[in-house]
Amino acid sequence: MKASIIQTFEKVKLHPSLVQSVTNYVVMNNTANALLALGSSPIMAHAHEEMEEMSQIIDALVINIGTLDAYWVESMEMAVAAAQKYGKPWILDPVGAGASSYRNETLKKLLEKKPTVIRGNASEIMALAKMSVKSKGVDSTNSSDEAVEGAKLLSNTYGSVVCISGAIDYIIDGDRLVSIANGNPLMAKVTGMGCTATAVIGAFLGRENDPYLATVTAMGIMGVAGDIANEKAEGPGTLQLYFYDALYELTSDILMSKIKLEIYD
Amino acid sequence: MKASIIQTFEKVKLHPSLVQSVTNYVVMNNTANALLALGSSPIMAHAHEEMEEMSQIIDALVINIGTLDAYWVESMEMAVAAAQKYGKPWILDPVGAGASSYRNETLKKLLEKKPTVIRGNASEIMALAKMSVKSKGVDSTNSSDEAVEGAKLLSNTYGSVVCISGAIDYIIDGDRLVSIANGNPLMAKVTGMGCTATAVIGAFLGRENDPYLATVTAMGIMGVAGDIANEKAEGPGTLQLYFYDALYELTSDILMSKIKLEIYD
Amino acid sequence: MKASIIQTFEKVKLHPSLVQSVTNYVVMNNTANALLALGSSPIMAHAHEEMEEMSQIIDALVINIGTLDAYWVESMEMAVAAAQKYGKPWILDPVGAGASSYRNETLKKLLEKKPTVIRGNASEIMALAKMSVKSKGVDSTNSSDEAVEGAKLLSNTYGSVVCISGAIDYIIDGDRLVSIANGNPLMAKVTGMGCTATAVIGAFLGRENDPYLATVTAMGIMGVAGDIANEKAEGPGTLQLYFYDALYELTSDILMSKIKLEIYD
Repeated sequence: MKASIIQTFEKVKLHPSLVQSVTNYVVMNNTANALLALGSSPIMAHAHEEMEEMSQIIDALVINIGTLDAYWVESMEMAVAAAQKYGKPWILDPVGAGASSYRNETLKKLLEKKPTVIRGNASEIMALAKMSVKSKGVDSTNSSDEAVEGAKLLSNTYGSVVCISGAIDYIIDGDRLVSIANGNPLMAKVTGMGCTATAVIGAFLGRENDPYLATVTAMGIMGVAGDIANEKAEGPGTLQLYFYDALYELTSDILMSKIKLEIYD
Repeated sequence: MKASIIQTFEKVKLHPSLVQSVTNYVVMNNTANALLALGSSPIMAHAHEEMEEMSQIIDALVINIGTLDAYWVESMEMAVAAAQKYGKPWILDPVGAGASSYRNETLKKLLEKKPTVIRGNASEIMALAKMSVKSKGVDSTNSSDEAVEGAKLLSNTYGSVVCISGAIDYIIDGDRLVSIANGNPLMAKVTGMGCTATAVIGAFLGRENDPYLATVTAMGIMGVAGDIANEKAEGPGTLQLYFYDALYELTSDILMSKIKLEIYD
Repeated sequence: MKASIIQTFEKVKLHPSLVQSVTNYVVMNNTANALLALGSSPIMAHAHEEMEEMSQIIDALVINIGTLDAYWVESMEMAVAAAQKYGKPWILDPVGAGASSYRNETLKKLLEKKPTVIRGNASEIMALAKMSVKSKGVDSTNSSDEAVEGAKLLSNTYGSVVCISGAIDYIIDGDRLVSIANGNPLMAKVTGMGCTATAVIGAFLGRENDPYLATVTAMGIMGVAGDIANEKAEGPGTLQLYFYDALYELTSDILMSKIKLEIYD
């Protein structure tokens, strides 16, 4: 699988994506910088009047509900409908799933549109799984195992690739499972690192037809860039900056040598 | 008082707060990063639909009017009402007080809800004092003295702890007064340092029942972290990053040895 | 012209501007930091209720349509009307011109208000020129030449100074043309560098009555600060921070010695 990851990385370096984000206010700057560092291009647009036209020029769509409200939820629904009309892949970032009924109801509507990829932390993925498959129940004694089970249910229910990011990242596509053990705890002390992962997956979805491979590649890049940044960082402030530098300078050789990939399927 | 400050600092390091911010677009990223660097957790949420539920899971609420408009003012009012219903402390950051009638009218409505803490610069605190106690007048020959007098009037009128941040920070609670002489002029060249102070006070309000002590602790941390960052910074850009690093690495010993506290009461 | 540039730079260092921005969410933090680093002051305000009053206290207005929607477009129109009423200069940043009909229609309405300055990249300036002077056509075999021709048409049609930023920046005022060859490709890998240029032009418009000179001065500063930052940067993350440091530390001598100015008129 490593060879395919490198091919996908090279493909996007050579033919960068144009990624539309309907995302939250907190992370817009971060995710735009991450896409630019990788050579891709961000568009942040949410006006109802332009959702249809934007969809025609983009390669992929990122939906992130972090600072949702009624207008933006409608933007998200319009953007997803347009993405589906024009055959563009899209990824859902369920920020704060479970924190309010409004978030849950919004997420239910978005899940029904069958996201190409879903990325969240273990708690968000569990919240989605619980609301989606309440009757089946989601039980486990281990929280990481539990989240993987939840992710499998989500993947089977919606046909989505599901990514659980954390100390170890898991990427699930039906019965297929990969883990990536890169990254470090300091990354969790920088706001928007999860949202940035979602945007980077978007960049790879825009060029790689296999969303499972796109997601694994993107998460490998996030983790490896985070590790490179961590070697120089003295805290979360400097980590964030060195992270963009690392994304910008990342090569196939470094990615190949540093990625800690485990394949379970 | 230093011993109490250290206890409060340790308390929040051990049991971090969950802080909701209804804040301005410019500083969301900064304030989220500052809270994370301290080990606390930010939630940025403003949808009317979720203000009530959010209030049930948070430890403290930050209201910052920097980029207010009609929808967001309503969010602020709903968030404050819910915080009061569920007994959560809240802090008001009156960004741009006095710059427009709309800001002043919004601030009057918020002041009437009796914020646990108010933090602004001298000009903002003076603007609030003038609109609150017009009949008494607020006179002084010295602008810093004048702001302290204004803060005392505000504190007595609304029962709030009032913090004036500047070259020297003043924290006022009725007749009690503390000053902190940490921090440096470069901090004023980074956007959102004042708003970050407000968010950090929020983190301490969420765990420390005495809002005066919470505010003094938070402002001490801001100033000391700013001084540590300033030793390495070459300008406002690097200062901002080193500031997050300093917040992240701050210890009781460093805080104790560097804080320049003066107690007047 | 170099002597006039230095005079303008000194004027704004001595008497900083207060710049209101009705701008996009992605870059608010960046543009505020750039203005502060130069000693000027940012106000971000968009509430319809305060557009008129804000205009009375500011020195210049920045309109940036990056993340436009119906409410914000109305804010922009109100802010421009107020700026014209109170005789304040304003600059238009046509982010994403040509990407959607909604952007184009909004830009047409704003152009009709005759911006003091327009700043965009070559593609945005071309999109504006095409929508403004469709009947005349805008033809050229060279994309940079073509954009300069488009800029001349825009300048003549609306009486605006037009700035095309890119590897080489062009500033056009009717038949007058200056180019600036500072700056570097890494700057394009940081989000909001173009929007930051617009804000910095705003700061100089606020003090310098000649908008052509204000624009040339601001673009010279952007390019020279970018070059200084690039000497130390290891990627786009560190570039952004060193850029603010460079803006903060810039002196007349450095600006004079490093600016690569060519005058064609």
